[in-house]
Amino acid sequence: MSVEPFDAVDVIRTKRDGGAVPEDALRWMVDAYTRGYVSDAQMASFAMAVLLRGMERDEIRVMTDAMIASGERMSFDGLGKTTVDKHSTGGVGDKITLPLAPLVASFGVAVPQLSGRGLGHTGGTLDKLESIPGWRAALSNEELTAQLAGVGAVICAAGSGLAPADKKLYALRDVTGTVEAIPLIASSIMSKKIAEGTAALVLDVKFGSGAFMQDIDRARELARTMVALGTDSGVATTALLTDMNTPLGLAIGNANEVRESVEVLAGGGPADVVELTIALAREMLALAGLPDADVEGALAGGAAMDAWRRMIVAQGGDPDASLPVARETHTVTAARDGVVSRLEALPFGIAAWRLGAGRARAEDPVIHAAGIDLHAKPGDAVRAGDPLFTLSADDDARFERALAALDGAYEISDAAPARAAIVRERISA
Amino acid sequence: MSVEPFDAVDVIRTKRDGGAVPEDALRWMVDAYTRGYVSDAQMASFAMAVLLRGMERDEIRVMTDAMIASGERMSFDGLGKTTVDKHSTGGVGDKITLPLAPLVASFGVAVPQLSGRGLGHTGGTLDKLESIPGWRAALSNEELTAQLAGVGAVICAAGSGLAPADKKLYALRDVTGTVEAIPLIASSIMSKKIAEGTAALVLDVKFGSGAFMQDIDRARELARTMVALGTDSGVATTALLTDMNTPLGLAIGNANEVRESVEVLAGGGPADVVELTIALAREMLALAGLPDADVEGALAGGAAMDAWRRMIVAQGGDPDASLPVARETHTVTAARDGVVSRLEALPFGIAAWRLGAGRARAEDPVIHAAGIDLHAKPGDAVRAGDPLFTLSADDDARFERALAALDGAYEISDAAPARAAIVRERISA
Repeated sequence: MSVEPFDAVDVIRTKRDGGAVPEDALRWMVDAYTRGYVSDAQMASFAMAVLLRGMERDEIRVMTDAMIASGERMSFDGLGKTTVDKHSTGGVGDKITLPLAPLVASFGVAVPQLSGRGLGHTGGTLDKLESIPGWRAALSNEELTAQLAGVGAVICAAGSGLAPADKKLYALRDVTGTVEAIPLIASSIMSKKIAEGTAALVLDVKFGSGAFMQDIDRARELARTMVALGTDSGVATTALLTDMNTPLGLAIGNANEVRESVEVLAGGGPADVVELTIALAREMLALAGLPDADVEGALAGGAAMDAWRRMIVAQGGDPDASLPVARETHTVTAARDGVVSRLEALPFGIAAWRLGAGRARAEDPVIHAAGIDLHAKPGDAVRAGDPLFTLSADDDARFERALAALDGAYEISDAAPARAAIVRERISA
Repeated sequence: MSVEPFDAVDVIRTKRDGGAVPEDALRWMVDAYTRGYVSDAQMASFAMAVLLRGMERDEIRVMTDAMIASGERMSFDGLGKTTVDKHSTGGVGDKITLPLAPLVASFGVAVPQLSGRGLGHTGGTLDKLESIPGWRAALSNEELTAQLAGVGAVICAAGSGLAPADKKLYALRDVTGTVEAIPLIASSIMSKKIAEGTAALVLDVKFGSGAFMQDIDRARELARTMVALGTDSGVATTALLTDMNTPLGLAIGNANEVRESVEVLAGGGPADVVELTIALAREMLALAGLPDADVEGALAGGAAMDAWRRMIVAQGGDPDASLPVARETHTVTAARDGVVSRLEALPFGIAAWRLGAGRARAEDPVIHAAGIDLHAKPGDAVRAGDPLFTLSADDDARFERALAALDGAYEISDAAPARAAIVRERISA
């Protein structure tokens, strides 16, 4: 019989009473939970204590490190290139990874974007790319490394070997009301990113109605926590706080988001998507030692598009293939003349989800052609009868439920809304 | 498939964010946990949120009522007598139930003392009484009712049918660091007492080193919470806050505590045991409508002893039988002349437990003859070589471990300590 060096109740009590859990005890707690000695009930109680009592900066670092230690740790040291990664906390119409990874890679930087699938109203990067015929998300570590060395940009599925403790803890938090603990969100995100072996990381921390954090203050706290954690763990990390009150771009879905991304790579695309792509690319390139890179030039001159095509081809995709188109569409028009003054991200995300673009359970498929295309965004003038947005689905029975979500989600007024920049703040160590 | 009317995560979040859980949702949470729909992890997270966020008075009443509703509810309405019960939060040398129940019953009041066994350093009333040859703790509901109608006093084991939700929740709290939540302590104690069907209840809430609550402020908060809860649930309830820094009386164990109780019933006994017995009896009799009962007279005149003998005989015990005596004893003497200035309850409780008077696991037996007899209490003058206390055990190998617990647990000084009353405060609705 092995003797355990700590007692879960002592660890829980320490946190419950507002203390800092000593490093060895915290490492043990994570390890003992991963191997099943500490029960779900004990970890749930601990997670609630963390949510309500917080964690010190050093505790968050140890917690993250313990989760990394629960699995494999990748390294790109032999690559001969700087690696820079981006992580977004998720939003509606957030396809930024698609143009961003090849754009940054076009400067000779390696961009390993280990991504996930969507659940609920926020889309998943892999789901979007799977709209492209032939493209595959699963790469072996060898394929990943080879593609980073060659193409530079990789967007693929994160292996299950990274931070298994986080996987177990995240599933527990999801059913115990403890998702919202900032130290646990930060350690969950960062354990995977650090285990992935990137040298630098830019965080796109979103706030607003379509974001995980509604409130900019909470988003700032999360961003600061993650920047400190990355820095403490040897990963150069900065964060942008970005507005997610309105859907990003004009496309919400999967195939249509790929189309919009290709427009950006061709030097066009919606202003907000271009603005955010360029801002994040500048951050990533600065961390890679290229603060003066001509980002706009790479988009306008075709270098980013070239990298995109190579990236898609390397993973079996055909960049010239037609993307799926939905069988049914339904267009909503403006009821009056005026200016679009409000268009809420969350209900549009939910509507796209109900059209089939997202999944309710992890095992559900997504319908790549389903989604919403906006024809006007806040600030755009419209005339009565002008198309406002078009819903796409394979089954028109879905329209009614999607439209129910959109009731009151947008507004046409006489006055234009105040313009605000997408990127609101920058957080660095 | 039945559809559940609430979601555990919503209930947890409400409490986590400092809100009051609506009555129907809280009732559902307790019921769904009892039948296993709400998981241990979810209830543990909820319990931690309750510990850190608290509960409103009405939530505690609903929680308690839901735990009562999980099992059977007794009623003594047909008895034709007032019923009054006492509950102690547990201490070292706390044998008060033994003289108290027959003392109060001697005034024609019914005293249904459904009791438990000891675990850890605090003794159990049933363990103490089982020192008496022939006495049995288990009574059917019919035997209990008949004894209440006849003798008036019953001390017996609580049936497992009372508040099963509490039993499940208590076991969970024990391993998740959530025992100390006052709303949960209060609802745990009171659900069983209210389910038991008593009309009135006096609480002995202890504070100090030998008590569950070290601190008088926390003990006061618990007492106020339970008094409010009893009152809200239709049980007339008062509480005394009593000092548990020093063991109660001179006997700590099982058989020796019965001996001391019989001394009190015979009109003698240690001053502190007599003081607390009389104070609690006055409270109980006042709630039963007899505020002017001659409590001292019932002790001095033999009425209480008569009730004791009838109570023991009714449960198969022989009140005249010899009580078990330990095979081995070890007496510790005073190292110097002076006054006993300190004698800590907790280490003496632990020492008696190590001698065999208590159990480490619920399934362990206790050794009825094991324990500690004090020869001096704080304030008593001693000469070097005078006996201070005697340890009793069936195996002298136990003395060393018991003495280790007593290292630094008592002190002899030149000056007498300040005298403080056992009963420090009275809490009523």
